[in-house]
Amino acid sequence: MAEPLRIALAGLGTVGAGVIRLLDTNAALLRARAGRELQVVAVSARDRDKDRGVDLSRFAWDDDMTAMAARDDVDVVVELVGGADGPALTLARGAIAAGKALVTANKAMIAHHGPALAEAAETAGTALKFEAAVAGGIPVVKALREGAAANAIERIYGILNGTSNYILSTMEATGADFADTLAEAQRQGFAEADPAFDIEGTDAAHKLAILAAIGFGSRVDFAGVDCEGIARIRAEDIARAETLGYVVRLIGMADVETGPDGTPALLQRVKPCLVPRGHPLAHVTGATNAVVAEGNFSGRLLFQGAGAGAGPTASAVVADLIDIARQTKEGGEIGAPFSIPSAEMAPMARAESGHRTGRTYLRFTVADRPGVLAELTAAMRDAGVSIESLIQQGRQEEGGEVLVAMVAHEGPERNVAHALELLRGSDSLTAPPLSMQILEG
Amino acid sequence: MAEPLRIALAGLGTVGAGVIRLLDTNAALLRARAGRELQVVAVSARDRDKDRGVDLSRFAWDDDMTAMAARDDVDVVVELVGGADGPALTLARGAIAAGKALVTANKAMIAHHGPALAEAAETAGTALKFEAAVAGGIPVVKALREGAAANAIERIYGILNGTSNYILSTMEATGADFADTLAEAQRQGFAEADPAFDIEGTDAAHKLAILAAIGFGSRVDFAGVDCEGIARIRAEDIARAETLGYVVRLIGMADVETGPDGTPALLQRVKPCLVPRGHPLAHVTGATNAVVAEGNFSGRLLFQGAGAGAGPTASAVVADLIDIARQTKEGGEIGAPFSIPSAEMAPMARAESGHRTGRTYLRFTVADRPGVLAELTAAMRDAGVSIESLIQQGRQEEGGEVLVAMVAHEGPERNVAHALELLRGSDSLTAPPLSMQILEG
Repeated sequence: MAEPLRIALAGLGTVGAGVIRLLDTNAALLRARAGRELQVVAVSARDRDKDRGVDLSRFAWDDDMTAMAARDDVDVVVELVGGADGPALTLARGAIAAGKALVTANKAMIAHHGPALAEAAETAGTALKFEAAVAGGIPVVKALREGAAANAIERIYGILNGTSNYILSTMEATGADFADTLAEAQRQGFAEADPAFDIEGTDAAHKLAILAAIGFGSRVDFAGVDCEGIARIRAEDIARAETLGYVVRLIGMADVETGPDGTPALLQRVKPCLVPRGHPLAHVTGATNAVVAEGNFSGRLLFQGAGAGAGPTASAVVADLIDIARQTKEGGEIGAPFSIPSAEMAPMARAESGHRTGRTYLRFTVADRPGVLAELTAAMRDAGVSIESLIQQGRQEEGGEVLVAMVAHEGPERNVAHALELLRGSDSLTAPPLSMQILEG
Repeated sequence: MAEPLRIALAGLGTVGAGVIRLLDTNAALLRARAGRELQVVAVSARDRDKDRGVDLSRFAWDDDMTAMAARDDVDVVVELVGGADGPALTLARGAIAAGKALVTANKAMIAHHGPALAEAAETAGTALKFEAAVAGGIPVVKALREGAAANAIERIYGILNGTSNYILSTMEATGADFADTLAEAQRQGFAEADPAFDIEGTDAAHKLAILAAIGFGSRVDFAGVDCEGIARIRAEDIARAETLGYVVRLIGMADVETGPDGTPALLQRVKPCLVPRGHPLAHVTGATNAVVAEGNFSGRLLFQGAGAGAGPTASAVVADLIDIARQTKEGGEIGAPFSIPSAEMAPMARAESGHRTGRTYLRFTVADRPGVLAELTAAMRDAGVSIESLIQQGRQEEGGEVLVAMVAHEGPERNVAHALELLRGSDSLTAPPLSMQILEG
């Protein structure tokens, strides 16, 4: 059997402890599958004395993560520190510069610095792998980078944030409102004390930007993700969607359009959408993630599983370690982190979404007085938006507020935006309107 | 850029033509992703003159496939001839013996000869890859062999035959009976003129045996698959299942149990099952395949997509070619075909299913006369089977036949088998009873 793959592990939170537990629990089968031992030699974290439920006395401890990463007896560094910049980035750069392979679960760091790190790894002739950074235990980075690699990817979309999906599917099941459901999710540990990263779509946007880069061969462009969260969705929106045959999901979606001059442009967005009940994503409930990739030969591929948690994330981290152990055993190389060499990953223009066509759900909260419906429908007409269905529920809410929900026929997104623009500042509206696209396909 | 990967392609049916079309259509991106050109140099098929819609004049033609496979200017042989034995097997053995990498879509050959071919490939130091042999375009071999490789796999199950799923989901949608639906599927090209391989479960069993070997590290044991098809399912079964909250699906399932002496034993079966409407597999309709793998750290992973067809199958074949192109570029090796070296794949005992517990759907067609229900329920009682629900529909069928459907409470499978044994030969039964397990989880 080949020499052990020697691992240094930085960051010993729940995922770090999970990785050690996995390496212990599954040691025999990992040795068989990897063709050699996966051996942790050194660990590092902020607090040496904290009880993490795993025996760390077997490993060298180094308070200085970057010094640990450069140890002669280390082949791979596993970065589980977190944060886009700071110590995690310093560690990653240091490890790669020292010629070590790097495995990370850090989606923020890859979304912000992925191309630079990939370039460094390619130059150093070492591996950079980040399966755990996207969709937890689902091997979707591998699926896109390798499994679907024969295809021109036409569209990538999915449910990329477990917390948001837990909240939306719980609202659907209970009829409760957003704030109450979030509070309950926090009590149950499905949402962080500060949930902004999840419910505002940032976490999903990190993952989407990484997937888009792999799928479309473009340079990771996190700042180019058009991002909207779920905090404005009301119980009534979900009820109305249900009446119309839909469920509400936070969908990350990316595709490439080709301009009249042949230049490709990348559309990336994270937004709550209406998903038809017949679509596989409509049945994804709880903290599950699911990613769809549409290839020009494969057709629609769906990958689904736990999007977070110590076990699933550790599963992805160790899958990367096995890949490295297998592929570098005989001095082989591991290939470009984002599927194509980073030098070939072109920065891609950002697509304008206004000319996209689709069907849209619109919800207005309006004052309960004569003429309001006429005002809304006139704005639609003036903007060229054709109304497919409209529900104004009789029930009057507290404060004389009434909800009007409508679905606009297939048409350009810019017309809907124009209609909302016409209504901006109208004192008939008691709150800004909410619009959600209807997922096709 | 590295030297081209030189390919010989044997078999030019719809999949072979699809592979050539894919290599042409996506040539530029394949070159970028693989790091070198995927170049077909030679082709072979039975009929040279047949019009396949692709230009073959660019390639050398060799009537003798095995001679072609041994050409000096060939790195990889793609076997798309089909059949477990015969020319396909001769070709595969010859290619490996000549030190060529082998890519195949041939599930029958891998199910029957996978371990021997893997051993030959490992000895020759070359690659054997068969992503396209299981579930068409879904990269599920890779998902199990690599993506979920960190996990002890606890169970693998799924919808592994598109034709059967098309028939069952169409019966569900239309209420039509099996024979009519099969005939319609044949007219529409979703079922072969001779559908036995699909509807009797053989095709699903091939795929299951391959997945089980990868997941559990056991030697492929196709003969050990307990296999039952869908031909006996009636429209009434599907209607009754629906009433009870289930859909009917042909499920391939494998897991490993550990006997009292610690010896592992493999259970593999392909059978129609009742799937709860809340389960992701209940929403898989049409000719789609879906595979669930449950890992001890990852939890439940689901992979779904087109299970057959020229495009999806070509996508899987070319994904294997890209892997080989990437990993052998610098002389690296590609690893064991079944995840662990074939010498370590132990033949595993076959599990007895009788002590398994579960809930079971039972359907009897009985003569419409007094005392029949008493006879059925007495047999259940005598075998220790407890009845959870029973539907005897008032409607009398032609010939005085009545359908009685029941669901047995959670209990040992052997008790249900015993009850059916007690009823065997009873002249109250107008046809053999049908039993279907209820999928848990």
